[in-house]
Amino acid sequence: MDQLKKPHILLCNDDGIEGEGLHALAASMKKIGMVTVVAPAEPHSGMSHAMTLGTPLRIKKYHKNNRFFGYTVSGTPVDCVKVALSQILPSKPDLLVSGINYGSNTATNTLYSGTVAAALEGAIQGITSLAFSLATYENADFTYAAKFARKLSKKVLTEGLPPDTILSVNIPNIPESEIRGILITEQGRSRWEEDAIERHDVYGNPYYWLNGTLMLLDTSLRHDEYAVRERYVAVTPISCDFTNRDFMGSLEQWNLKK
Amino acid sequence: MDQLKKPHILLCNDDGIEGEGLHALAASMKKIGMVTVVAPAEPHSGMSHAMTLGTPLRIKKYHKNNRFFGYTVSGTPVDCVKVALSQILPSKPDLLVSGINYGSNTATNTLYSGTVAAALEGAIQGITSLAFSLATYENADFTYAAKFARKLSKKVLTEGLPPDTILSVNIPNIPESEIRGILITEQGRSRWEEDAIERHDVYGNPYYWLNGTLMLLDTSLRHDEYAVRERYVAVTPISCDFTNRDFMGSLEQWNLKK
Repeated sequence: MDQLKKPHILLCNDDGIEGEGLHALAASMKKIGMVTVVAPAEPHSGMSHAMTLGTPLRIKKYHKNNRFFGYTVSGTPVDCVKVALSQILPSKPDLLVSGINYGSNTATNTLYSGTVAAALEGAIQGITSLAFSLATYENADFTYAAKFARKLSKKVLTEGLPPDTILSVNIPNIPESEIRGILITEQGRSRWEEDAIERHDVYGNPYYWLNGTLMLLDTSLRHDEYAVRERYVAVTPISCDFTNRDFMGSLEQWNLKK
Repeated sequence: MDQLKKPHILLCNDDGIEGEGLHALAASMKKIGMVTVVAPAEPHSGMSHAMTLGTPLRIKKYHKNNRFFGYTVSGTPVDCVKVALSQILPSKPDLLVSGINYGSNTATNTLYSGTVAAALEGAIQGITSLAFSLATYENADFTYAAKFARKLSKKVLTEGLPPDTILSVNIPNIPESEIRGILITEQGRSRWEEDAIERHDVYGNPYYWLNGTLMLLDTSLRHDEYAVRERYVAVTPISCDFTNRDFMGSLEQWNLKK
């Protein structure tokens, strides 16, 4: 491939610049494009589409094994995308890839995910954007996920995506040979039960940790989390237009008056 | 209305417990229900659906003019909803109302809004939820907005909402007599241009403030921000299912292989 024709690919994540999944992704994506990494200086899981308004942001260069790897931003995943486009990149990249996240971003967790939010921020800015997550919290092996991210990126660079739409991809943490296939899925419904757990400090005062159990409410292969648990790669098209248009007609019938 | 039959209403916001719009909302909603306020201890604008995972949360009682007003949580708007349901309320409320936010939450800002996210968190938990925002950053007059919030809440308590759907309501900052009417709207498209602005510290090192100009891309009365600018109240049904179903068929045609 001609060096000049290589696509320019912006990488971001929410696990931070040291995230193992980001490094696996960068190594893989460098095979098909010119890669710029802009990631949070610290882990920012669960930050959703948060941005930093009351505090200024710092940009630093990050080296690994004495080689320049990318830039850190002292903020959230969405901050990274905004700062990358405004201050770091000379021009708009051809593709934004966010991840590979440690832990799935399926069902309701789509709303909490900084990995997905960074990709949505790319879509808002008119950039073709993808988010990748590996469905595990331990013993992560990013080998197949990084390979599939590269493969899907090539496809997306050819096919394009509709405006304001990203692909959020969730991958089971198993060897490639055990993957059953690729499914196009919907964001399933789920709910965290018992969200906050009480502890006491040494003075006897209570404090609370957010935690709980994810209750899966959609259990068909049509739905992202269930598909991943059944050992499929789940590819979900996610829009940054949240309007429930199906309900607009009924709402009109309410005849609201001021 | 019989005291025993009054609905139980949870109030939250993202401007924090001292937010003027929250106090106006509480005063108004007390006329139709039993109100519990659970709000961030500090302002949390632009926090979207962020939740606090690495730090424990504290709950405190908040008094105003020597009277108990509500609870503060040392976290984000979504934290407040989770902690309220898990630790503060004896049972699930009949309604969650988030706001009244200082500044509109329309178009792309829907994604950044902690006010909208708190209501979406309510919807995930199966609670009928509304978000209200006043479209101004100065000289706010919450009188009409608080009145309309009460009126729409009564309607919603009767009519209900579809699962996983909230109403996000944006109100112009003008007297009631100048409001042209109520419109059912879609989330319009918009984009912030020049997102980060460079400054230098006293040592000459650069830092960056997120800022910019909101470019409005949809300019019809069908769209939230434009409708508000034209002096209508904009009522937008927002879903916490972000799937772009229209694109799923085309994606199937890609015949993705592992």
